[in-house]
Formats: sequence, C-alpha cells, structure tokens
Amino acid sequence: MVSEANNADERPQVIIIGAGFGGVWAAKTLVRLPVRVTMLDKNNYHTFLPLLYQVAAAEIEPEQIGYPVRGILRRMPNVTFTLAEVTAVDLAAQTVTTNHATLAYDYLIVATGSVTQFFGTPGAAAHAFSLKTMEEGVRLRNHILTCFERAVHATPDERRRLLTFVVVGGGPTGVEYAGALSELVHGPLRKDFPELDIAEVSIVLLEAAGRVLGGMSESLSAYAAQSLHKMKVEVRLEQRVTAVSGTAVTLHDDSEIPTSTVVWVAGVGGEALAKESGIEVLGNGRVPVQPTLQLPQHERVFAIGDLAAFPAEGGGWLPMVAQVAIQQGIHAAQNIGRHQLAQPLTPFVYWDKGTMATIGRNKAVVNWHGRSFTGFLAWLIWSVVHIMYLIGFRNRIMVMLSWGWRYFTFEQMVRLIMPSTRAGWLAIAPQDAFKRDAYEESAD
Amino acid sequence: MVSEANNADERPQVIIIGAGFGGVWAAKTLVRLPVRVTMLDKNNYHTFLPLLYQVAAAEIEPEQIGYPVRGILRRMPNVTFTLAEVTAVDLAAQTVTTNHATLAYDYLIVATGSVTQFFGTPGAAAHAFSLKTMEEGVRLRNHILTCFERAVHATPDERRRLLTFVVVGGGPTGVEYAGALSELVHGPLRKDFPELDIAEVSIVLLEAAGRVLGGMSESLSAYAAQSLHKMKVEVRLEQRVTAVSGTAVTLHDDSEIPTSTVVWVAGVGGEALAKESGIEVLGNGRVPVQPTLQLPQHERVFAIGDLAAFPAEGGGWLPMVAQVAIQQGIHAAQNIGRHQLAQPLTPFVYWDKGTMATIGRNKAVVNWHGRSFTGFLAWLIWSVVHIMYLIGFRNRIMVMLSWGWRYFTFEQMVRLIMPSTRAGWLAIAPQDAFKRDAYEESAD
Repeated sequence: MVSEANNADERPQVIIIGAGFGGVWAAKTLVRLPVRVTMLDKNNYHTFLPLLYQVAAAEIEPEQIGYPVRGILRRMPNVTFTLAEVTAVDLAAQTVTTNHATLAYDYLIVATGSVTQFFGTPGAAAHAFSLKTMEEGVRLRNHILTCFERAVHATPDERRRLLTFVVVGGGPTGVEYAGALSELVHGPLRKDFPELDIAEVSIVLLEAAGRVLGGMSESLSAYAAQSLHKMKVEVRLEQRVTAVSGTAVTLHDDSEIPTSTVVWVAGVGGEALAKESGIEVLGNGRVPVQPTLQLPQHERVFAIGDLAAFPAEGGGWLPMVAQVAIQQGIHAAQNIGRHQLAQPLTPFVYWDKGTMATIGRNKAVVNWHGRSFTGFLAWLIWSVVHIMYLIGFRNRIMVMLSWGWRYFTFEQMVRLIMPSTRAGWLAIAPQDAFKRDAYEESAD
Repeated sequence: MVSEANNADERPQVIIIGAGFGGVWAAKTLVRLPVRVTMLDKNNYHTFLPLLYQVAAAEIEPEQIGYPVRGILRRMPNVTFTLAEVTAVDLAAQTVTTNHATLAYDYLIVATGSVTQFFGTPGAAAHAFSLKTMEEGVRLRNHILTCFERAVHATPDERRRLLTFVVVGGGPTGVEYAGALSELVHGPLRKDFPELDIAEVSIVLLEAAGRVLGGMSESLSAYAAQSLHKMKVEVRLEQRVTAVSGTAVTLHDDSEIPTSTVVWVAGVGGEALAKESGIEVLGNGRVPVQPTLQLPQHERVFAIGDLAAFPAEGGGWLPMVAQVAIQQGIHAAQNIGRHQLAQPLTPFVYWDKGTMATIGRNKAVVNWHGRSFTGFLAWLIWSVVHIMYLIGFRNRIMVMLSWGWRYFTFEQMVRLIMPSTRAGWLAIAPQDAFKRDAYEESAD
C-alpha cells in the first residue's frame, strides 16, 4: 500500500533513511522548512559510533552511546519516526518499501551509512569480529572476556591462542581499539586473573600499508606506532591477511598467527540497500553523488555520509567520518529547500575540522589544518570534541563519569559477559566456540 | 576428572555454587578462615536483582546492577572464581560437576537461588515474561518499547492489545514493576509517541489474594493499591490466571484480557539443580534445611538464600529476599569454621531488618518491626537501603545519577531496543511476534 496521507497535507514528503549523523542533522535542518519528514531506521536509537570501540573494550555501557530517535525528534513537529527496515527504493515510482509498508516520497535522503568489507578474504566474514553496530560492540566485549575465562582452564597451546588478539587494520578504529584493549588487559584483567601470566597476552595490530593512520601526517603515524609499542601492542606493517579461521589468521607470506580473536577494522563500504535498489554505485558500494549531493538523473534523491562518494580536494574521496555526514546532512536539507523554491542548488563544500584518534591515557593524535598535536593536549581535545557531539546531556554526564572513573582508578568497570551472547558459550562444543556466530546459534 | 589440587594444599576445599547475595557474603566471611574457596557461577557478574525491574522499565542500564565477580573476589586471596554451569552435585562422592570438570569439595554451600514458577498454567512458560535474570530484564524492556512502535502501525484491535500490559502477581516485584511501567508510559513514552492516544494504554495488575503486598500490613496494602490507582494502574484482586497465550490472558471466570504482554511475577521456587541432584526438596523445589543451614544427613553441605526453606517464627518460611540470603551466607560460613574446629554448630536466627517496596516517585511502603512508613519518607529509606547494598562505588554513583536525572526530568532515558532481541522482531511474522521467544528464534 502507498501512503494516502499525501492528500491531506499539501507539504512535500521527505523521507530520510537512516538515523545516523547524516540523517539526524538533515532532520534538524528540515524542521525549518515547509515539508513533512519521515525518518526510517531499523533501530529505535541513534548510535554514537566514534565511541563504539570503548563499548567493545568494556569502558562504557552500550546504552551510553545510544539515544532514542524519538527523543531527538520530539521538538520537531514536522518529523515523524518509523522503526522499520527498508527493503527497497524505487526511484522511478518515488517510493520506499519497508517491512511494514510502501511509502511515497517527494524528496529522499539516503543516509544508510557503511558496512564492514572483507574484500573476499576467505573465512573473514564467518570468523572475524567487526565493529560497526551496537550488537557487534557488545559481542566483542563478551568474547574478549570469555577468552580470558576459558584461558584459565585451557592447555598451554589453547591458552596462547585464547590470549592472542589480532586487530586487522591500522586506521583510527584499529589504533584506538588496540590501545583500549591493552589498557583493559594490563589494567583490570591483570588483577582479575591472578591465575594467568599476563605476559602471555599478545595484542597484534596488522596494517597493510607502510604506516598506521595513513590519513594523517607521518609524524603522527610514528607517534601512534611508538605509543602502541610502549603499551605492548605489536604493530606489524605491510602485512596482508589472506585467510581467517576460528583458530588462526594467515598472512600473505603464509605464516600463521594462532588466535581466537580477529577484529576486522580494515575496510568499510557502502551499505547494500543502494546497490540492491539499482542505484549506481562504485566497487565498494558507495554512491557517487553530484556536487549538490543529488544522484545523477534523480534530482529529488540525495545520498550523504558514509554512503556517498564525494571527491576530496586533493584527489580521492572524503573520509567516512561523522563530520562529513553532519555537514552533508545539513547541506542536503538546505538544497531541498532551494529546490522547493526553484532556486539553484549549491555545491557541497567540506569544512575540514581536523582528524583525530586516541591511543590511550593522555595519548592521542590530532591533525588540524596542517598542524599536529600529540600527547595530553591532543587527548584533551579528542575528549572534549567527542563529548560535544554525543547526543543527550545524560549520556554526556555518564560517559564523562565513566572516563573520570577509569582515569583515576585505572579500572574498566563494564567487564560483564552480558546478553545476548553469554547464554551460548557454556553450551557449545569447544571446537565451535570461536566461530563468530556460534554463541547466537547455540543460544536459545 | 577430579581436581588433584587437594594434595598440594592441606586446607579444606569449600565450593560455593552461585554468586548471588548468599554466595558473595559467604565468600566474604570465609576469607578469614583457613580454607580454600572456589566460587562457581554461570555468569561472570553478580546481579543486584532488587533493581532488575528498573532495567525492564528503561530506568537504568543493565550494566549498573551487574558487578564482575572477579572484581568482588580480588581482595580475597583464598577465593578463586570459575565461570561454569553446574550440572550435578554428587553428595555421596562429595563432588560438583560443571560443564568444565568435576571438582571435589570438603564443604559445599548451595546458593543457586530461585526461578520463576508458572504452576503449570497453560501457555505461561511459553508466552509470559519473567523477571529473574539480566537477560529477562533487557528482553522485557525491548518488548515494551517494541509494543509501542508496533502500535503506531496497528489496526485498532491490535493497537489496544499491544497497549495492554498485564502484570500477574501483586507482591513487591509486581507492585514495583506496575508502578515503574506507569511512570515510563505516562512520562517519556507519552511524549515519544504523539501518534498514539496514551489514554488507550492499560496497565493491569492481577492478584490472586484479596490484597496486594500480602506480606505486609493491611494499611500498607491499601496505601499501595490506592497509589497504583492514582497512577492509572488497574488493580484487580482475587483473580486467578488460568491460561496465557500470545494474544490474551484468561482468568478463572473464563473472561479474557487481550494483551501482548503478560509479566509473570506470581511465583518463584527453588532452582532445579538441588532437585536434579537428588537433594530432598519441597514441592516448590526449595531445600528444607536444619536450623544450622546444613542438609539433613549431610553435615558438610549447606543450602542458603532463596533455595533454602527455613521456618519463619510465626509459621511458614522466611521470605525469599536479599537480607535472608546475606545473613544465611554469613552464618553458613561461620558454621563451616565451627565444624573445622569441632565446635558445635549454631542455629541460624534471622534478624528482620524490615520489608519494603517502592511504587513510584515519592511513594513507597516500609514495614519495620511492626511500624509502617509510607510516602516520601518510605521512598527515601527504600532508596538509601538499595544504594547501600548495591556492590561497587561506581554502580552506586551511576544508579544515583540515573535516579536523580529521572527525578528531576521525569525521563526514563534507556528507551533503547537493544541487542539481543532487537534484531529479531523485524524479521518475524506478525502472528508470531509476541511469542516470548520469537525474537531470539528468528534472530540469527
């Protein structure tokens, strides 16, 4: 059924798919225009993805980086929310189909974001952990803690495998997670597990290129690598992963690292909906957009954020980060306003507010208009910026409290193996225990 | 395999099954004795069950009422923890078998707690929600929020069913949850769902006896019923539930209440391990213990807490509450010390610190040595006592902050449909949507 509501209301219908940074900031901008807006998302909450790695490192509660979408939209009288999974977009009919219904749009903003890409690496999709959704963050936290619990009762070989953690991908997420994992292990887990020799724990960061944080300056890459080294993370450069199994990761020279934990943060591509709906995409699933953020040949359809491939000034594409999504969300909404008034649409210009990554306590790197900051100052900037963009005053307070607590006590307190994945591991056979989905499969 | 560690260490081996109130306080007491202690639990965290209903009402994060067991045991050099599910106790061989191994004990404390009892009510086990574990708390929270999301798109009949919430059992948990649900609905959900007429929401509390809070004085029962009435909870007394389905609850007079949500807090019995291991139990699975908390004929085995049936002074049994478990945990440990020294064991005497239940903002009832308190004072006592017994300073701060936030803003902020059960509902057929386990079954 196609919604009949159009007849009752003369205002054009805008549909936003996705309640991430791009979608939320688009809605915030559309509230001032004479349009009706429907926002669709398969979760009832907005996820602050830049801190997801801290959920996976037992630093903060998952609820602290989620905010109810309906809470965000409360003061927006022309915006409604529907919890639904979008199954198809029909550009010719101007409709969006969800698991509930088919909805007609006058304008469409596709902001579905990105998903992990495994580049066809054998076994990676089945055995590696990714870090793109709240589920995956909690699952990885549970898995890390479970590895330690199992190591207590394991044979020496098993124990070394259980205590080897391999992070694939030396971008910001990989660097941040490797650092956070080191602090978790050498802080509270060392005290929690007097039965284990914590020197047996090995955290390995694999990067295909010649340096970590390839998007930043060489001096920042060197600082990050050095900091990780001090935190007992083994950084291995120019390493390509050729296979992943439940018990090892294989490298390009056919050497193997026995491990039960491969965290795959080596690649992201556009979310599948665009491609499945026949929208033209690049090889990685991202949608090439016009300078106005419109799709070619579809002036009423905009793609923004991680999904959109937008040329960067110095060549290549704009990075898949929150700032790009936020600014594109605002710009797409403004261009919808211009289109309504039959004004010429303006091209999107990215205002680079800098890039940053944190490595650990008092250790971060910030790149800001050619200037580099490291150490405590960079760490402070990183913290303040992340708190600022976190939605919800309560979430900000809670995260600051968690950080403060951890800073002064050296304790990551969310060391809980929680639903859903906890139920499973007791029941499953040891040889299946570290298939990525074994927990869920055996849980009932 | 039976643990060989005994040979190396002359101290007797105590095994504690369960890291609830009884088990934890037993361990705290045993730390001063010349024994080795192994604590077993199937979770790696202690759950503060008295606040679980607040998790299910989106008031606090589940992590805030969980505390890592290894964190509790850190300063107890003679206590170790094993994450394991106990499958059998062999009283003759003096061993405990888990999914990992078989362990020999010199003394055993069984503190496995209680589970929901459905008294054979048809459909209840399959369709009703219980509230005894962290999983169940999160699952119920997700379900309530999902009902509201679905109601937006439902037919009028479906909508009324989705917005009718039936709580079965007018004891403390039932009263507390009905009140908390009312505050969630009439506070934030009313604002979140402008599409719904919140007057259509119906919260029904069913009680089989002639008054709610049967364990307290009649004046407190009356106060609780009156408070719930003011909060728009329909309290129906002398109602027996004869059947539960995915779409309705049936009462003893064959009348039906169409509902998608039956919260079953009408009965608890002893956890199954004792009975399955051939320990003599009452009809409800609880273990009748001697005044010393020992099992009859098994002087080295103690049962404590919800699992133990201990005669109360005025007849009947001691209530299944945290205070009984805590005091029995301490007493069982002390009696192990006496047994080691060949001193006579002393009988357990319960020191009643009072009973209490909260109904809502500024509304609670406290029964203390024959005295009754209601209203703001009772609410304050309730709050202070619960914060005091919550383990972990960070948890206390976080819960106080959540309460303070809610108190001043009237907002329950954890309105997130989170893993694990979120993934499923989008995929499942509407007619199956409210089978209790449908979420998990269809999630993969």
